[in-house]
Amino acid sequence: MKIDENWLKLKSPDFSAYDGMDPEKKLMLVGADPFFPDRCIPEHIIEATKKALDEGKTHYALDNSYAVPELKRVLVKKLKEFNGLDVDPENELIVVPSSAFGLFVGIRVCIRPHHGDEVLNIDPGFAENFNDVYQMGAISVSVPTYMEDGFQLRIEELEKRVTPHTRCLVLTHPNNPTTTVYKREVLERLADFLKKHDLMVVVDQSFERNIYEGNEYITFAALPGMRERTISVFGTSKDLGLTGFRVAYMVAPKPVIDILKVATFNYVGPTNTFAQYGVAAAYTDPSYVDEWMTIFAERRRFGYEQLNAIPGVEVLLPEGGFFFWVNVSRLGTSVGIRDYLAKDANVGVSPGTWFGENGEGFLRIMYGTMRDTGKYKEAILRIKDSLSKLPVKA
Amino acid sequence: MKIDENWLKLKSPDFSAYDGMDPEKKLMLVGADPFFPDRCIPEHIIEATKKALDEGKTHYALDNSYAVPELKRVLVKKLKEFNGLDVDPENELIVVPSSAFGLFVGIRVCIRPHHGDEVLNIDPGFAENFNDVYQMGAISVSVPTYMEDGFQLRIEELEKRVTPHTRCLVLTHPNNPTTTVYKREVLERLADFLKKHDLMVVVDQSFERNIYEGNEYITFAALPGMRERTISVFGTSKDLGLTGFRVAYMVAPKPVIDILKVATFNYVGPTNTFAQYGVAAAYTDPSYVDEWMTIFAERRRFGYEQLNAIPGVEVLLPEGGFFFWVNVSRLGTSVGIRDYLAKDANVGVSPGTWFGENGEGFLRIMYGTMRDTGKYKEAILRIKDSLSKLPVKA
Repeated sequence: MKIDENWLKLKSPDFSAYDGMDPEKKLMLVGADPFFPDRCIPEHIIEATKKALDEGKTHYALDNSYAVPELKRVLVKKLKEFNGLDVDPENELIVVPSSAFGLFVGIRVCIRPHHGDEVLNIDPGFAENFNDVYQMGAISVSVPTYMEDGFQLRIEELEKRVTPHTRCLVLTHPNNPTTTVYKREVLERLADFLKKHDLMVVVDQSFERNIYEGNEYITFAALPGMRERTISVFGTSKDLGLTGFRVAYMVAPKPVIDILKVATFNYVGPTNTFAQYGVAAAYTDPSYVDEWMTIFAERRRFGYEQLNAIPGVEVLLPEGGFFFWVNVSRLGTSVGIRDYLAKDANVGVSPGTWFGENGEGFLRIMYGTMRDTGKYKEAILRIKDSLSKLPVKA
Repeated sequence: MKIDENWLKLKSPDFSAYDGMDPEKKLMLVGADPFFPDRCIPEHIIEATKKALDEGKTHYALDNSYAVPELKRVLVKKLKEFNGLDVDPENELIVVPSSAFGLFVGIRVCIRPHHGDEVLNIDPGFAENFNDVYQMGAISVSVPTYMEDGFQLRIEELEKRVTPHTRCLVLTHPNNPTTTVYKREVLERLADFLKKHDLMVVVDQSFERNIYEGNEYITFAALPGMRERTISVFGTSKDLGLTGFRVAYMVAPKPVIDILKVATFNYVGPTNTFAQYGVAAAYTDPSYVDEWMTIFAERRRFGYEQLNAIPGVEVLLPEGGFFFWVNVSRLGTSVGIRDYLAKDANVGVSPGTWFGENGEGFLRIMYGTMRDTGKYKEAILRIKDSLSKLPVKA
């Protein structure tokens, strides 16, 4: 069979480890899907989507920038007020069906396949970014970050790895899985680095609204001189919880958007039409996210205390997102501990190795799932009981 | 700016020719979007989608095959009854956000980028297929078809172009833009050709339900021995008119689906969740398409007679789809006549050059748009008046 089997070399999440879990007792802290599997979307969003259906908004959304006019208007306002970006919606904006697609196509535009082009990827990081680079015929260069720095970027680690073949950097901000909200001085030094080497940057802002007190969130494209070299990818799945809507958008300089329009037309076409009206309603009144953040903040504090109380386990207080990046390297391997927790605690967590070569020895534990905080706490306590039984390596 | 400007070499539809049209008078026969811009989707589909929203079906559709259970069940039934395919939904099916994506990823799986791999593309054909091949680092080889054959395939034209580098053929069936429904004996000879050269085939069945009396529609994968080398792409935009829903699906052998799952996860992720319930309702009762086909059949007959009555113009009776493929080569070039009709008739049509190098001298005229058949007829009569004024080349 004449097929490209290279794909099968990609690291993809293996969910079969969860298959043997007791269906009655199991609690899953895996997917980045707010309150999954419970109902959570506020009525004004549901109603706006239903209204669009009733009004016959079921045709292709083929307007310039692939946005329905209502969403276009709302996004311009949101980008200005929330992100500090003045955006020309006809030339600097495009709506796409997911941030996964936005990241793929954003990286794709920066590289020329099979020219030996290199992409700097922060590791631990979002696995699809490593895969995307590899599978489009470029080289993903892992840039390590360290727990002792709170996983902030060390510019010298970038300097060590930049070559004449380097085309761009991918920045997930806040980082998934480390939760890091990058500090202003770090981002300013990153900006200098990008200018010095004339690089593009693809910034994934999926969790931009999930920022905890004491952390300042900076939209990278809003830094002086960065607009012209930044491809910003904004999702609606994580921070707005609209995972099933499949609506994301990108902001970039006009020459990039000109290409993104062609690429998106060929690769996937427009985005769901009526879902865009739901997203417009969410941005018009996103106050429910503040309520969600209050819930998340309590769960964050609880998990942080309980997990750090386990002998041999270390976790930093999350800065963004709704998950923990937990160092369990003194107890075992990522996959080993994941498998153990599935069996012993009936709790599903993600092995750190899903997030790059530097993820070994870590777990990602999602605290944004399920409606019932009591159940979440039970899951954390079960993890605590199970891990406390394990011997601690020196 | 370090970006891949190769994209800008792709041929993409240029809509600016329509900008100068009189907004009061203009009539557009361009996009393949049933009854656009008017309301057309039956209530049972709208209601099923709204019900899914009310029931909290707003999370990621991450189930195996990316289909919500309800849609999976309905598709297995539809594939058996309509297409004659027995499909294992866990291993031979995947839901994707559009046929455009399905075609891109289907072709992508067959080729290895930048290995000199070749893809046979029927020309005239669907423009994205030529672009996709080029842009993923393979070579698109145009296979001509001829009006005198009713645009059926000549196997000798394929034989002339097959090389050791050929990986697959892309078959749009019925063809867009020629409307051709391929005859059984042609498809059987094509099957022999594919077996002889050990090739894969990617079949786009977007218009499979838009077949006119006297034509037999054959699902290529259902032919003996073809299941194992066919990647079938099924849309819901054209034949079911669900253009804004963004739900498509693919059927392929397990080894291909295994790769498609990885590729889809990385490129775009799952498909809109609540829209899938609408699609399930459409397949549960697709009788409205029969009513649409009655309307289309009348428009087809009217346009066929009126267009053929224009001196120097020739058009075949469409076999599938809801558009005409009109030979105007004795009046001028595709783009020249398109521009002339936009100005003189205030009617928008597509130049044949959007559909490959063999599209020169043709127009694609969509008769599936707008609710009001009277307006459609007016558009055709305006085209007739305008074209009748032009001198006819010998």
